[in-house]
Amino acid sequence: MAQEKVVPPEETLDPEDWESIRALGHQMLDDMLNYMKTVRERPVWQHAPDRVKAHFNKPLPLDPQPPEEIYEEFLGNVLPYPVGNIHPRFWGWVFGTGTVLGAFAELLAASMNTNSGDLDHHSAIHVEKQVVDWCKEMLGFPTSASGLLTSGCSAANLIGLAVARNTKARFDVRREGIQNAPHKMVLYASQEIHSSIQKAAELLGLGSGALHYVPVNGYFQIDLQALKAAIAQDREEGHLPFCLVGQAGSANTGAIDDLDALADICQQEDLWFHIDGAFGAWATLAPSVRDQVIGMERADSLAFDLHKWMYMPYEIGCVLVRHEEEHRKTFSLTPVYLSREDDGRGLTGGDLPWLTDYGFELSRGFRALKAWMSLKEHGSRKYGRMIQQNIDQARYLAALIDATPELELAAPVTLNVVCFRYIRSGLDDAVLDALNKEILVELQERGIAVPSGTTVAGKYVLRVGHTNHRSRREDFDILVGEVIRIGKELIQSKALSYGIGSVCRR
Amino acid sequence: MAQEKVVPPEETLDPEDWESIRALGHQMLDDMLNYMKTVRERPVWQHAPDRVKAHFNKPLPLDPQPPEEIYEEFLGNVLPYPVGNIHPRFWGWVFGTGTVLGAFAELLAASMNTNSGDLDHHSAIHVEKQVVDWCKEMLGFPTSASGLLTSGCSAANLIGLAVARNTKARFDVRREGIQNAPHKMVLYASQEIHSSIQKAAELLGLGSGALHYVPVNGYFQIDLQALKAAIAQDREEGHLPFCLVGQAGSANTGAIDDLDALADICQQEDLWFHIDGAFGAWATLAPSVRDQVIGMERADSLAFDLHKWMYMPYEIGCVLVRHEEEHRKTFSLTPVYLSREDDGRGLTGGDLPWLTDYGFELSRGFRALKAWMSLKEHGSRKYGRMIQQNIDQARYLAALIDATPELELAAPVTLNVVCFRYIRSGLDDAVLDALNKEILVELQERGIAVPSGTTVAGKYVLRVGHTNHRSRREDFDILVGEVIRIGKELIQSKALSYGIGSVCRR
Repeated sequence: MAQEKVVPPEETLDPEDWESIRALGHQMLDDMLNYMKTVRERPVWQHAPDRVKAHFNKPLPLDPQPPEEIYEEFLGNVLPYPVGNIHPRFWGWVFGTGTVLGAFAELLAASMNTNSGDLDHHSAIHVEKQVVDWCKEMLGFPTSASGLLTSGCSAANLIGLAVARNTKARFDVRREGIQNAPHKMVLYASQEIHSSIQKAAELLGLGSGALHYVPVNGYFQIDLQALKAAIAQDREEGHLPFCLVGQAGSANTGAIDDLDALADICQQEDLWFHIDGAFGAWATLAPSVRDQVIGMERADSLAFDLHKWMYMPYEIGCVLVRHEEEHRKTFSLTPVYLSREDDGRGLTGGDLPWLTDYGFELSRGFRALKAWMSLKEHGSRKYGRMIQQNIDQARYLAALIDATPELELAAPVTLNVVCFRYIRSGLDDAVLDALNKEILVELQERGIAVPSGTTVAGKYVLRVGHTNHRSRREDFDILVGEVIRIGKELIQSKALSYGIGSVCRR
Repeated sequence: MAQEKVVPPEETLDPEDWESIRALGHQMLDDMLNYMKTVRERPVWQHAPDRVKAHFNKPLPLDPQPPEEIYEEFLGNVLPYPVGNIHPRFWGWVFGTGTVLGAFAELLAASMNTNSGDLDHHSAIHVEKQVVDWCKEMLGFPTSASGLLTSGCSAANLIGLAVARNTKARFDVRREGIQNAPHKMVLYASQEIHSSIQKAAELLGLGSGALHYVPVNGYFQIDLQALKAAIAQDREEGHLPFCLVGQAGSANTGAIDDLDALADICQQEDLWFHIDGAFGAWATLAPSVRDQVIGMERADSLAFDLHKWMYMPYEIGCVLVRHEEEHRKTFSLTPVYLSREDDGRGLTGGDLPWLTDYGFELSRGFRALKAWMSLKEHGSRKYGRMIQQNIDQARYLAALIDATPELELAAPVTLNVVCFRYIRSGLDDAVLDALNKEILVELQERGIAVPSGTTVAGKYVLRVGHTNHRSRREDFDILVGEVIRIGKELIQSKALSYGIGSVCRR
């Protein structure tokens, strides 16, 4: 064969010494298991010190560094300072907790490093289809629906709304765009809808002004009369209502819209019915709240996460679309009647469509593996029990709060979100807002627990969004006890700054 | 504390038996190391048999299955049937190869399972900022630029073009959308541009019709005169040219547009300059081709992958935006002047903006860790050598082809892509197309090598897109030898079906 005159030595990024990297790998694995096993013994969160920030402000590495040293830096600067969401007393926002086998699956997936984007004759594609099929089964979608695993629910919402836009536009949106839409396309969601819906509307070129925020009722559900009125008014103004976004599990209070009623309205009004079910979709697995998500199975598209209430490690979400063809027509650049190779041989042979025909990404990792392994490890019944447990624990916390004079519930507990605040008679809302903010910061800074804060009906409250499989009832006992203790402490120590010297005499 | 009357036993998804899962983990780790170490000994790809597809067509698991059994299923049905892209002779499309430490990093990241979406006081955020800073340094972007790690270049292109659209629209796109754009916004790219640009234009509501495909020159670069003419004509027709997409490394031939000239045109024409540098951006690290990407540092936004030419495991890409404020204004839902907590305490204290202010995802995994560890493990100089090695090997293959009468180069080899075909005098192009398709299928089905196929200047060709750190010159010797051997075999065995009985006598 041909030879060049100067042949440089060939290198690779594979290890020079496989046995030393193997030893390091085993050390890492043991450390990670111990880390997960002992998480309860550590503070939920600790403020990363300035030296950590400084550690990650270094010049570009030019030369190799031994992996063992890099791992030491990881142990000293990265591992001790996570957000904290795998801890049993982390309930901020809606974060995920992850599992051991899920983490192992990520090692397997990254070692294979197979690209799940397209092609048919390889295993990852079948694993993903299996996972999507199981999701359809759990969530009541027909087997004819299409689906795609995504980085999370934001991407899933984006895909669902893109299909909605393109399907309902009455012209070729892919070709023409919506720059000259004959009618302004408008969509609807409640004021409590997640911000990713607005982000999607903006990204899709619809504009946040096309997203009509409809008021909510006392249960923080979209108000059906206000919704109908908004649709009627938009029609009167010559706009084209095309989509209604229902919510299964609001971030703020866990509220679930009346999905069955929304499905009826969509049918009557010829609207695409999209549901943001980020975590709440999984309520369907829990006996005590299953009825609340009736109607979900009637959605045209359903977006949800598997890294929140299904407890899998980041990142994994999913979108299901009832109408496979519309889904594919929104994203596929390959006509389905074209078989890549007629006889099914070679990498491009086999069945169409490919997974890339259902989304905006081409190269795709193998996130399906952790879902497939996790669903088999636990089985859907245990997932149902865990979700029910979270709901029961939320109710347990609500009962504790109800029984505690210093605490006050701020919203009905319908699912897994508990909003409450510390109160003291004689303090006005502005003072209580400041006091509860301080209580939250102290809970976090002391590493006791991580609720988040939000505003419900104009009042600042602590918010427990519970999708944590490691929490026990005793963790909520601790939370309540510490909120009371810190509240008292703060009132005593900060009485003057709160301007409440008079109430602190008792 | 309050107690319910019936207290169900509390469960968790943590292992019941930590020692048995630990043993399984160590087994997995050993298996994965052996799998990566011995990849060269296996076929590049093997057609997943029907039983594999059937294996992933099972009912939803209701009850738990032991992890050891699940792993056995993985070993039997998943691991042996990857796409094959970590093998030294996989050069199809532009796939990634991954590394051992990169895979370990995924285990660490999934064990921590920290959410890198927002907040400031935790380590993952600083790791990501460090990685983005290093990317800026390597790619010639100013430190004031913003950046975000993404799932890949498709998402990075989407983000870059969204910023372009919103910045150049002359009205409030986030609020108004582009449904009533006063001028049709149009953008430009060459006919050889990657399909993700069209997908982004469609998703953003611009429409593929707004993407003007400009012809290429003999080096498959965008034709500058044709580009200028297209812009002039659009202005004449009352449209608003707003963006020019340059390409650093086309999928088809590896062509790099004349980026410096494109930057000049953008300046003259007031266009946003976006570059799709999926793999080609990294040419800047290779001495022999560095000059070809001059001008890249002048882009307004630059999208690229780290899971292709930087060899990291899926998924990881990045977008850099020169104008931090425009980037943030496109995605942030929080005004930057609002500090989350004034005194910097608690989880929501600390610096703004958060990473979620730069993209459409809210929950985000910790993909930065594998990038940080990898860049430290090898250092930028070794990455430069590896990329240069790939280019040298592509040239080596081109020289082999040039020296082989049965083979013909189909396009100049300017970077790491080699397009070629098997030829035989007396055969017309239709027959050669069919013959080369068969050669490709045989190379793949026999597990010898995985090039992909494409069409260059109307001819079907084999295409080696080389971003593989495991390939050696001997692998290209094997490729060339086998293409010749299979070509001869096919001509002999299929002479009649090719209608070429007469040429096979020799």
